[in-house]
Amino acid sequence: MKKRDFLTMDDLSIDDINDILDDSFLFSNLHKGWQLPHSRLIANLFFESSTRTHYSFISAETQMGAKVVDFQPSTSSVNKGETLYDTVKTFEAIGMDCVVIRHEEDRYYEQLENINIPIINAGDGSGNHPSQSLLDLYTIKEHFGKFEGLNLLIVGDISHSRVAHSNITTFERLGGNVKLSGPEFLVDRKDLYVDLDEGVAWADIVMMLRIQFERHKDKFDFKADEYLEKFGLTKQREKMMKENAIIMHPAPVNRDVEIDSDLVECERSKIFKQMENGVYVRKAIIKKVFGEEF
Amino acid sequence: MKKRDFLTMDDLSIDDINDILDDSFLFSNLHKGWQLPHSRLIANLFFESSTRTHYSFISAETQMGAKVVDFQPSTSSVNKGETLYDTVKTFEAIGMDCVVIRHEEDRYYEQLENINIPIINAGDGSGNHPSQSLLDLYTIKEHFGKFEGLNLLIVGDISHSRVAHSNITTFERLGGNVKLSGPEFLVDRKDLYVDLDEGVAWADIVMMLRIQFERHKDKFDFKADEYLEKFGLTKQREKMMKENAIIMHPAPVNRDVEIDSDLVECERSKIFKQMENGVYVRKAIIKKVFGEEF
Amino acid sequence: MKKRDFLTMDDLSIDDINDILDDSFLFSNLHKGWQLPHSRLIANLFFESSTRTHYSFISAETQMGAKVVDFQPSTSSVNKGETLYDTVKTFEAIGMDCVVIRHEEDRYYEQLENINIPIINAGDGSGNHPSQSLLDLYTIKEHFGKFEGLNLLIVGDISHSRVAHSNITTFERLGGNVKLSGPEFLVDRKDLYVDLDEGVAWADIVMMLRIQFERHKDKFDFKADEYLEKFGLTKQREKMMKENAIIMHPAPVNRDVEIDSDLVECERSKIFKQMENGVYVRKAIIKKVFGEEF
Repeated sequence: MKKRDFLTMDDLSIDDINDILDDSFLFSNLHKGWQLPHSRLIANLFFESSTRTHYSFISAETQMGAKVVDFQPSTSSVNKGETLYDTVKTFEAIGMDCVVIRHEEDRYYEQLENINIPIINAGDGSGNHPSQSLLDLYTIKEHFGKFEGLNLLIVGDISHSRVAHSNITTFERLGGNVKLSGPEFLVDRKDLYVDLDEGVAWADIVMMLRIQFERHKDKFDFKADEYLEKFGLTKQREKMMKENAIIMHPAPVNRDVEIDSDLVECERSKIFKQMENGVYVRKAIIKKVFGEEF
Repeated sequence: MKKRDFLTMDDLSIDDINDILDDSFLFSNLHKGWQLPHSRLIANLFFESSTRTHYSFISAETQMGAKVVDFQPSTSSVNKGETLYDTVKTFEAIGMDCVVIRHEEDRYYEQLENINIPIINAGDGSGNHPSQSLLDLYTIKEHFGKFEGLNLLIVGDISHSRVAHSNITTFERLGGNVKLSGPEFLVDRKDLYVDLDEGVAWADIVMMLRIQFERHKDKFDFKADEYLEKFGLTKQREKMMKENAIIMHPAPVNRDVEIDSDLVECERSKIFKQMENGVYVRKAIIKKVFGEEF
Repeated sequence: MKKRDFLTMDDLSIDDINDILDDSFLFSNLHKGWQLPHSRLIANLFFESSTRTHYSFISAETQMGAKVVDFQPSTSSVNKGETLYDTVKTFEAIGMDCVVIRHEEDRYYEQLENINIPIINAGDGSGNHPSQSLLDLYTIKEHFGKFEGLNLLIVGDISHSRVAHSNITTFERLGGNVKLSGPEFLVDRKDLYVDLDEGVAWADIVMMLRIQFERHKDKFDFKADEYLEKFGLTKQREKMMKENAIIMHPAPVNRDVEIDSDLVECERSKIFKQMENGVYVRKAIIKKVFGEEF
């Protein structure tokens, strides 16, 4: 059997994407019902801090009846300088059927070609984060029933975002339109830049990104609370949105920095829905790498 | 169905308390037999160091057949400033059926009113620690068969103790009598103060609390080893106890500070029995928040 | 029933060793099939960093259907100065059926005589590491079918190795021959010392140990990369090995320090096979401490 990794959105055909979204939809209806037909051990190797992605994978794996091993790098031989390859090869050797990896290095998985068990990429450096991209797509499709002709505005730190770049490409492949806004030095695709107010009125989906204000503060001549006014989603801007438009954010949210705290759970916000959907999507990904059928 | 949280002893009626103690007794006889009738995911969110409470909950949950997720705040988005509310809401969104929380902030759960899954309080700041209070009560009832008329002496750092205050109130509600002893500046209810030797002779239960000697050492004009003589349970004091009286301590114990090391496992000590009972009590609490019947 | 601990190789008779190796062989064929006949809770208490031993035990326990509790010392009452004895006694009190312990103190288990559940030693200080010794033996027997008459060369930091000393004694008890090589100040059994090139040509098994170069660098008048030439297994030395001879290493490997990186997965290397075998051996150990039969 050919090994099935799940590494980047670019590896997926439109059909692959639609398959995963369809399976995610089935998982959303099955509630916690469907179990993996074979006993499976899955190890989660998170080398970076994470709440949503990490525990969403654990929740999905656990609900599907997998046996879950949660690796703690800080109390491992990584401390003694063991390489990523040797660490992952160890998990293969001790009987894991799959590894889920988040790592700070871009395209870390290129070192892992000799690994014989499926690798699920849970985020690499500022590169890819395909399970996040898919849960974003699922949330959009759940609301609008389609992608064609939809307008997606992404706002904030595009240049450091794992998800923004692959979302731009994928959303365009699926027939949608994308524009970007935010502080200009953080928007690396100038061709897609739009003024924030104009973009908010144009968009069907306003996707806010987390801004690491502290990292960039020497480039701003204003304070954190002024950021919201200039580049964030205020209550006033929310009123400019189309009637059926939605708000998204990958979280963690900086409340009152990139988004007014009162909007986080407003009616058109999908922020916690995205987290819920993340479990369905990750179940679909796990089902796919093991080649299982419903 | 109304949401059932488990937050403070004050929320519990005498009937609620007796129900939990009765169920705990059944669990003590069922050994590891009874399983939750539905598949349940429980997340443990411990923001403070803990051995007994943390692993006792994990043991109870695991024995009952729950699927257990153990959150590690130090490698989560809490690092990036994510609020407690957003963290807990995330665990709700990803499919948890219940969260068990220990947090350093007094009454942290007041921020969590919009959480729709049951919250079990495993200790808040220096406020409440209801599962500890209940395991203390269970241990007393197991030994004496009743509360009415019993004399409880609590010794040590009353003012910083999560448990002492609720134990005082609850024990009095149940018909018992309470007195306090220890360094005077650490006993905030002066009306209940008693000389240590006198209290030890009076008590049916001598409940020693952990003293954080290092924290208070500028207020003492003597050394750690002199503390035992002045305010601790020495072998001499143990001899002054009533024939059927018992020793309790929530642990971790500072051996030879608040209690002579040789007394920790003496015949009348219930210190490790309390830990065993903690599992039964926590099973009863979990059963209660899910509204299950035997 | 007498309590069965698993603490040191010296505690095991030749028959015990052969029993465990035979069971390990059965486990290697059963794949993930055999389940513990009773529900068992096992707590892993790793006070030192570890990848292989820690996750290999977790993998073995999980595959056998045990319920696994993974203790995190850094967020426990160990922080508050709780003793090892009180910590382990707590795990006994809360219902664990077995504890697996790695601790930095030599013969830490001598403090644990009053613990009434089985203790599996997963490494103590620079003393014992019996599950590693057994997986080494298993790997040798798997390849050669016997121990009698085989030549074992151990190379590197013998004096600080948990495994080297017990491997020397055990391998001699089993009828094999042992020689040692490496920097002379790190070889504490001078009677067994052999020149490296000579030893490599003599050996059926070349067992390289991890060298903590940084710890000893003031004693070397050469650099890390020169270490490989002088005391490591280079490609040239590998060519001097007997046709059927094998390479072993407990890992983590310092690639290009004690062994040329290209040799780690060469045909005669058993380094990742050792890790795989570690799971079978640990299953056999767990089966043994619970007194279960196939």
